Amino acid sequence: MRLSLTSLMPVLVWGRRYNRADLSSDLTAAVIVTMMLVPQSLAYAMLAGLPPQAGIYASVLPIILYAVFGTSRALAVGPVAVVSLMTASAVGQVAAAGTAGYAVAALTLALLSGLMLIALGLLRFGFLANFLSHPVIAGFIIASGLLIAAGQARHILGIRGGGNTLPEILHGLWLNIGGTNTPTLMIGLASLGFLVWVRKGMKPALKRLGAGEGLATLLTRAGPVFAIVATTAAVEALGLHEKGVAIVGTIPQGLPPLTLPGLSPDLLGALLLPAALISIIGFVESVSVAQTLAAKKRQRIDPDQELIGLGAANIGAAFTGGFPVTGGFARSVVNFDAGAATPAAGALTAIGLALAALALTPLLYFLPQATLAATIIVAVLSLVEPAILRRTWAYSRRDFASVLATILATLGFGVEAGVSTGVALSLLLHLLNTARPHVAEVGLVPGSQHFRNIQRHQVETLPGVLMLRVDESLYFANARAIETMVLDRLAADPAIREVVLMCSAVNVIDFSALESLEALAHELAAQKVRLHLSEVKGPVMDRLQGSRFLKDLNGKVFLSQYDAWRAIIADAPTVHLE
Amino acid sequence: MRLSLTSLMPVLVWGRRYNRADLSSDLTAAVIVTMMLVPQSLAYAMLAGLPPQAGIYASVLPIILYAVFGTSRALAVGPVAVVSLMTASAVGQVAAAGTAGYAVAALTLALLSGLMLIALGLLRFGFLANFLSHPVIAGFIIASGLLIAAGQARHILGIRGGGNTLPEILHGLWLNIGGTNTPTLMIGLASLGFLVWVRKGMKPALKRLGAGEGLATLLTRAGPVFAIVATTAAVEALGLHEKGVAIVGTIPQGLPPLTLPGLSPDLLGALLLPAALISIIGFVESVSVAQTLAAKKRQRIDPDQELIGLGAANIGAAFTGGFPVTGGFARSVVNFDAGAATPAAGALTAIGLALAALALTPLLYFLPQATLAATIIVAVLSLVEPAILRRTWAYSRRDFASVLATILATLGFGVEAGVSTGVALSLLLHLLNTARPHVAEVGLVPGSQHFRNIQRHQVETLPGVLMLRVDESLYFANARAIETMVLDRLAADPAIREVVLMCSAVNVIDFSALESLEALAHELAAQKVRLHLSEVKGPVMDRLQGSRFLKDLNGKVFLSQYDAWRAIIADAPTVHLE
Repeated sequence: MRLSLTSLMPVLVWGRRYNRADLSSDLTAAVIVTMMLVPQSLAYAMLAGLPPQAGIYASVLPIILYAVFGTSRALAVGPVAVVSLMTASAVGQVAAAGTAGYAVAALTLALLSGLMLIALGLLRFGFLANFLSHPVIAGFIIASGLLIAAGQARHILGIRGGGNTLPEILHGLWLNIGGTNTPTLMIGLASLGFLVWVRKGMKPALKRLGAGEGLATLLTRAGPVFAIVATTAAVEALGLHEKGVAIVGTIPQGLPPLTLPGLSPDLLGALLLPAALISIIGFVESVSVAQTLAAKKRQRIDPDQELIGLGAANIGAAFTGGFPVTGGFARSVVNFDAGAATPAAGALTAIGLALAALALTPLLYFLPQATLAATIIVAVLSLVEPAILRRTWAYSRRDFASVLATILATLGFGVEAGVSTGVALSLLLHLLNTARPHVAEVGLVPGSQHFRNIQRHQVETLPGVLMLRVDESLYFANARAIETMVLDRLAADPAIREVVLMCSAVNVIDFSALESLEALAHELAAQKVRLHLSEVKGPVMDRLQGSRFLKDLNGKVFLSQYDAWRAIIADAPTVHLE
Repeated sequence: MRLSLTSLMPVLVWGRRYNRADLSSDLTAAVIVTMMLVPQSLAYAMLAGLPPQAGIYASVLPIILYAVFGTSRALAVGPVAVVSLMTASAVGQVAAAGTAGYAVAALTLALLSGLMLIALGLLRFGFLANFLSHPVIAGFIIASGLLIAAGQARHILGIRGGGNTLPEILHGLWLNIGGTNTPTLMIGLASLGFLVWVRKGMKPALKRLGAGEGLATLLTRAGPVFAIVATTAAVEALGLHEKGVAIVGTIPQGLPPLTLPGLSPDLLGALLLPAALISIIGFVESVSVAQTLAAKKRQRIDPDQELIGLGAANIGAAFTGGFPVTGGFARSVVNFDAGAATPAAGALTAIGLALAALALTPLLYFLPQATLAATIIVAVLSLVEPAILRRTWAYSRRDFASVLATILATLGFGVEAGVSTGVALSLLLHLLNTARPHVAEVGLVPGSQHFRNIQRHQVETLPGVLMLRVDESLYFANARAIETMVLDRLAADPAIREVVLMCSAVNVIDFSALESLEALAHELAAQKVRLHLSEVKGPVMDRLQGSRFLKDLNGKVFLSQYDAWRAIIADAPTVHLE
């Protein structure tokens, strides 16, 4: 696909056709999403170790930039739980939480991540995200959810603590649990209980009270707002902040500020790898949400353009006091359900959030951190779907191993180690599998021209003829294994005079495999055994044409295995069907 | 294969049948190889940065242990050029050359390497060596040869210098070239010239003088010995060692001593990765030599048992004052040509070397280092075979890239970086290839039941039926690409009512791909398009049986593509052949 201004800025396409009906849908969606995003933004900023306003800032310009460059109609961009956790982990390695250096490093992380995403998009390297397998993503999200929930527990208890791994977090809780603050715990547990009820029981209850589906849904979505209003009021009324309840405190009023990320080589070097991991994880999360929602309306998204949209959003976050952002699942689904017709819904949400930042922040002075922690815990625990363990176990032990290793590495060694382990292990298991390929001896399915495994099907064979279907591309990791296997078969059965390698599953023959095939041909010629190939694919044959191997081959290359079968019978009239 | 005492110790098999004829062959081979090994052992010890006797020590017990545990009849184990270079590079990072710590670290490296080789052998993980592709090995050997030759140049010039990479070595030569010692240079150039002539012109010259083939070969092999005798005599007679010619000096007389490798955790940690690389490179070099020689006599070697043999040899080296060893190409070929009948030839060689260590070392006091350097240079330059660059370029750009990257990384960043880069790049290129698989639309080859690419062959198709052959296993890296590709094809041609995925080249469907297939089936069902599979292999079908995918599929799974073709025609009588 050629790069053009309209393909780089999808806003130029949908913006021209924008009408009043679209505006009405988008405006409704924006109001609902704004209501949901205010507390969520504060909470994820806290999770990232940043002051609460950073969460709002990270939701304004990024949303607008995504609306200009992104292709999804419903994706809502902003801070999300997993990326916030990864931010805390990465930035925590270069600066102490709460310092100016910490905030600057978070900006740098967003900038690096944005630049990487745009570079991948311009190079059309979006497919690289596919190297993160479903089992690895699922395992990573489960483990991140658990890590986040465990990490927020200290805010519910009102104690100190911290850590990037489950043992560290649990150790911190264990050391400090004696200092639990009772008013904080009561607020935290009440919020948790209420929010769980909002998710599970509020909608049916409202309907029983006679509320319509629409109103019930709306009120349910506003649940976290109720919790915030109620607990904020309780703290103010009872003066709980003087009894040890940690509150949000002063949030500066105003529009997102212009900020500059740190650009020192040391900082850039230290954040390079985390930024790459955040980019990939953020992209994968965002694209899967966008694809899921687009499929519901028979729309398609362009993953490479999504990279550019997300990259622009992150660069926006870097210059307006934010931190790394991506397309979030919960907010996007809400946006979609609320009827967002175009990316303008996002822009309107941004305006709503900017107004909130201007006007509402003084109202949040007494908001207890325990309430925000409860919001986060309830949100992330919904991401923990252990069914993937059962499903992969049933389907393939290899995929199960990837899930389990990713979960354990993430819990035990943190998010970066977790993703890296998962990707490395899944690639390794795949490669090991191709290094020891399945090879089937085949025979003719009676009454057809089709050849199948002699151990699974009733098939016909020819005496003295070994027909092998190699179920893998031939490349360096397995080239010698195939050579050895054929020679071992010949050593075991000296009656074999013809060997046919059926290459229907051989998609590549690389240079190492070519050399092994040459050695095999040489060896078979010395043993007076003919070597044939069949069903060699076009692209593979193109390469072989120029090689010495075909010249030296003492057998033939047949279009189909059946052609090989007939030719061998014709060549050796004494051969008879068994 | 079950582990048994006789499989673990092949000596128990061939030792029982050992006879006088074998002894005679083996004794002749041993005399010839000993003559060749004395100077070579001194030279490779110098290359590894160790005192000359270490080279002899590393050739005694290791040879005997390999004779007990190894499977090759002709392989001669001892110090080799590339592994000596890798030893110098690894040990140079933890200790200064010439110190006691350096020698101890070399022992530790041999121990670690030996333990790793044995572990791989017992786990039967010999196939892991296949992950080193031919292009990577070839590139690595070329670059190592160049590095070694450049590194020895300072001994020819009689100057100081050093370095593990080509820029470092050249920089060292540049800085010190002013101090070139003329007598050293003359000895060095004379030795180089003579040794080149020995390789290229001596045998024909001897034959012209009337020598028989056998005598000519024997004298040619002894060439390095002549060079050593002549230059040693020249130094002693002319007192050149007092004019700045560096000589070998005192070599302690005696059998290999009992030594203990260093076992401090720091040392072990620092040498772990280099030991792994040395093990793999040494194993690959050794096994390819052993296989080449075994094939000439229609023998087979057991790569897993070879690991154990080499591992034992390295552990032997670690406890007798040596350094990492492996099966060498030159010495093994000589051993083979000289008629070695059993591994006992190796044991006899070890006795010869032990005698040399006891008796001959005083004679080598005046041996100039320049002569040893010339021996090394001539030996390693014969390893530099640039034809691999031309051959891979002609066959596949991907393999060419692997060769070139390995050469450049080895020259520019040293042996460890070189091997690692080569392996990582070749795996990456392979994976990228499978991530964007070839997919062919197929049709029926007239008059057959065989289906081929419609763009390459004259084939028949059915209107409204899309038949796709996916030329790759379906796994996480390409799962989504296939899904997208099919949906794009459908979007481009709304007339399609049936899709058949011909799975003859699909060797695995992993969990991620299963989920993509489920999504695809769901999407096609929504578009009222039927999805069929054909030629699904046994192992793939086994997994699918338990999955939801087959239950939800709105089409069928056909044994062969031709069955699918006939069923679709039968189902829709309006469909006609075009």
